Amino acid sequence: MTLETSHSRSSVGIVEKQYYTFAHPPELLVLENGAEFGPVTIAYETYGTLAEDKSNAILVAHAFSGDSHVAGYYRDDIEDEKPGWWDSMVGPGKGIDTDKYFVICANILGSCMGSTGPGSPNPETSDPYGLDFPMVTIGDMVNAQKALLDSLGIERIHAVVGGSIGGMQVLQWCVRFPEMVRCAIPIATTMRHSALAIAFNEIARQSIMADPNWNNGNYYGGSRPDMGLAVARMVGHVTYLSDEAMRRKFGRRLQDKETFSFGFNADFQVESYLRHQGIKFVNRFDANSLLYITKAADYFDVVESMNKSGPANDTRQNKIKYLIVSYTSDWLYPTYQAKELVKTLKRTGQDVSFCEIEADCGHDAFLIPDDRLSKLIGGFLNGTA
Amino acid sequence: MTLETSHSRSSVGIVEKQYYTFAHPPELLVLENGAEFGPVTIAYETYGTLAEDKSNAILVAHAFSGDSHVAGYYRDDIEDEKPGWWDSMVGPGKGIDTDKYFVICANILGSCMGSTGPGSPNPETSDPYGLDFPMVTIGDMVNAQKALLDSLGIERIHAVVGGSIGGMQVLQWCVRFPEMVRCAIPIATTMRHSALAIAFNEIARQSIMADPNWNNGNYYGGSRPDMGLAVARMVGHVTYLSDEAMRRKFGRRLQDKETFSFGFNADFQVESYLRHQGIKFVNRFDANSLLYITKAADYFDVVESMNKSGPANDTRQNKIKYLIVSYTSDWLYPTYQAKELVKTLKRTGQDVSFCEIEADCGHDAFLIPDDRLSKLIGGFLNGTA
Repeated sequence: MTLETSHSRSSVGIVEKQYYTFAHPPELLVLENGAEFGPVTIAYETYGTLAEDKSNAILVAHAFSGDSHVAGYYRDDIEDEKPGWWDSMVGPGKGIDTDKYFVICANILGSCMGSTGPGSPNPETSDPYGLDFPMVTIGDMVNAQKALLDSLGIERIHAVVGGSIGGMQVLQWCVRFPEMVRCAIPIATTMRHSALAIAFNEIARQSIMADPNWNNGNYYGGSRPDMGLAVARMVGHVTYLSDEAMRRKFGRRLQDKETFSFGFNADFQVESYLRHQGIKFVNRFDANSLLYITKAADYFDVVESMNKSGPANDTRQNKIKYLIVSYTSDWLYPTYQAKELVKTLKRTGQDVSFCEIEADCGHDAFLIPDDRLSKLIGGFLNGTA
Repeated sequence: MTLETSHSRSSVGIVEKQYYTFAHPPELLVLENGAEFGPVTIAYETYGTLAEDKSNAILVAHAFSGDSHVAGYYRDDIEDEKPGWWDSMVGPGKGIDTDKYFVICANILGSCMGSTGPGSPNPETSDPYGLDFPMVTIGDMVNAQKALLDSLGIERIHAVVGGSIGGMQVLQWCVRFPEMVRCAIPIATTMRHSALAIAFNEIARQSIMADPNWNNGNYYGGSRPDMGLAVARMVGHVTYLSDEAMRRKFGRRLQDKETFSFGFNADFQVESYLRHQGIKFVNRFDANSLLYITKAADYFDVVESMNKSGPANDTRQNKIKYLIVSYTSDWLYPTYQAKELVKTLKRTGQDVSFCEIEADCGHDAFLIPDDRLSKLIGGFLNGTA
C-alpha cells in the first residue's frame, strides 16, 4: 500500500469527494421556513465499507467551517498536504474504526465546501444566489443528510457523531428521526445558543455586513468582503480558545522584536496569530456562508423537542444511546449546558452517558488529537455494537 | 438649594468641566516612547473642597471610554440629563464622601472627552493629529495627571481609585509616585493584559482599521469609520458583560416579533441591544482614541515594577495601603489576576486588603450602583483617614 506509506500519519489513505444532487424541480425540498428549494447538491465522503445489511453506517457531522473531508488525503503527490479534519479519530483501529464502520460525512447545506450554499449558482439566473439563498436551519441540514442516506439505501445509522454545530445536527437527528439512530454522540455542543453565543455570532455577522465590499451579499463577481470576514473569523477564533490556552500558547510574548513598536503593528504574538487566522480564513471560506450558518446555529433550539421525547412518547425497544461530551475550558458551550442536556434526557428516561474532559484548550478541544476522546468514543461504540 | 431639588438623584449638584494646559514648547512632555510632545490639555472636574493643608485629595481614574464627569450634572435645565458615571459612589455621605474629600477626575491623555488626543488639532498643521498623535502609555496618562496635581499645589493624594483601565492608572501611580499616594484602590483590573484581553482589543482595532472610512486615521473632515467603530464597541461590550448577566438580561428573547425573521434582521433582543450599543458609541467616541487607549492598555505591565517595590526598597513609615477589589463574574480581568497582584504586594511586604465581590454582571460591575462597593470603599477610606 504505497498510499499508506507516503501518508504515514493517516491510515485511511486517498479519498474522493462525492456529490449527490436531489430536490430537482418540481419535487423541491420544503425548508423549515416554509420555502421550497432545489436542486440541492450535497458533497460527501465515505470511509470504510458498508456492510451487506447496511447496519454499520456512522454519520459524522462537521462544525461551522468544516467540510466533508474527515480523514485521509485527496492526492498522493503533495507531501505536505494536510489530512482531513478528524483524521486522528476516523480510520482503521481508531476511535471511529473504519475496519468496522462505514463512515459518511456530508458538507452542510449553506456551506461553501461543495454543498449548495449562497455562493452556488442560482439556476434561475446562473449567478450566485447571494442573499437570494433561503435561510436554512440545522433541521434543513439534517433533512439533506437524510436524503443522502436514503439515496445510499441506509435506513438506520449505527451512530451520529459531531462537535459544536456538528453536535447540534446530532441532537436534531435524535429528535427528528429517532427511529433511524442507534447511538448519538454530541460533543462540545448545546441544546440552544445562550445570549453570549448569539452575541458573538452577531458581532461576526455585523463585521461582514459593515464591509462595503459585502454589498448586500452581491460580491461574487468583484472584490470580496475580506476585511470584514477576517475580523469575523478573529472573533470566532477567540471563542474557540480559552484564557488558559491563550496564556500558554502566547502569553505576552512579542512577535519579531524585543520592544514595543509604539505603533499599530502586531506587537504581540497573539495579534499576529489572529491576523494570520483571519487572512487564512478568507482564502477558504465564503462570507455569506458564515452569515447563514451562524444564523442557523442561533435559531437552533431543541429544548422543547427534547423534553417531549420521553418514555411516554417513545416505546421502542431500542432507544437511542447517548454519549455526551463536554470540555472543562469550553466557554462557548460550557459544561453546564451539556449537563442541562443530560438532565433533560434523563428526565425523559433516555439512556445517557456523560463525560466532561479536563482540557485547557477551550471549545476546539474536540478537534485536537486526544486519546481520551478516541478511547471514549471507541469504547462506547464497541459497547453498543 | 434648587439645584439639589431638581436633581434629587445626585447630591453633588451642578459641576463644570475645567481645563489645564501644560507642556508648552519648548518644555515638552517626554513620553515613555522617548518622543517629546506638547502642548497637552487635560480636561478635569473636581468635587468637594480642598482642605487648607491640601491633604484630602482623592484622584479618581476613569476607564477606557469614560471621562472627567464622575458625578453631578452639567446643566440644571435638562430634566433627563444623566449624572456623571460614578454618581452613586462620589458625593456627600457616599462611598467617596465629598463632605470630607476633594475629588479630582481627569480625562486621560489620548481620549476624546476634552483632553488632548488624536482628534485634537495638531498645532503644527491645525488639522487633527490622526495617527501623527504619539503612542501614549498608561504611564504617560499618569504623568499628565501628576502635572495637573502639581498645578493645583497637591503634593500628596489621600487616595487614588479606579476600575479597569482606571485601575491600571492606580497601579501606575503606586509604582511611579509611591511617595505621593497614601491609599490605592484598584478595582476590576490587572497588572498586565492576558493574551485574551489583548486579543479582544486587537479585534476591536482591526475592526476599525478594516473600515475604508478609517483612511489610516485621516477621517476628521469626512465620513467617519462608524461601522468599524460600532463593531469594535460590540466586541468590547460583550467582554464587559458575563454569560450569567446576558442570560438574565436577554436569554433568547425575541425582539418585536413572535417568530424568527428567517433573514438577517435582529431577531434576538441581544442582537438589537448590541447594535444599539454600537450606534450609540459612534456618536460619542472617536475611533482613533479607541486605537490609542486599547494599545496603551495592552502595553501596560507593572509586574516587574511591583516586584521591585518591596520593603528593601521602601523604607517609608507610611507605606501605601491597598484595597484590591475583583468581581466573581469578571472574565476580562478575572479574580485570579487580582490575586496575583495581592500575592505580589504581600510578598514585597505591602499593606494589602482584598475583596472579591459576588456579582453576576461581569467586568462592568464596578460601574453599577452597589452598596457593597460603596461601603467597602467608604470604610476603607475612613480607616485610613
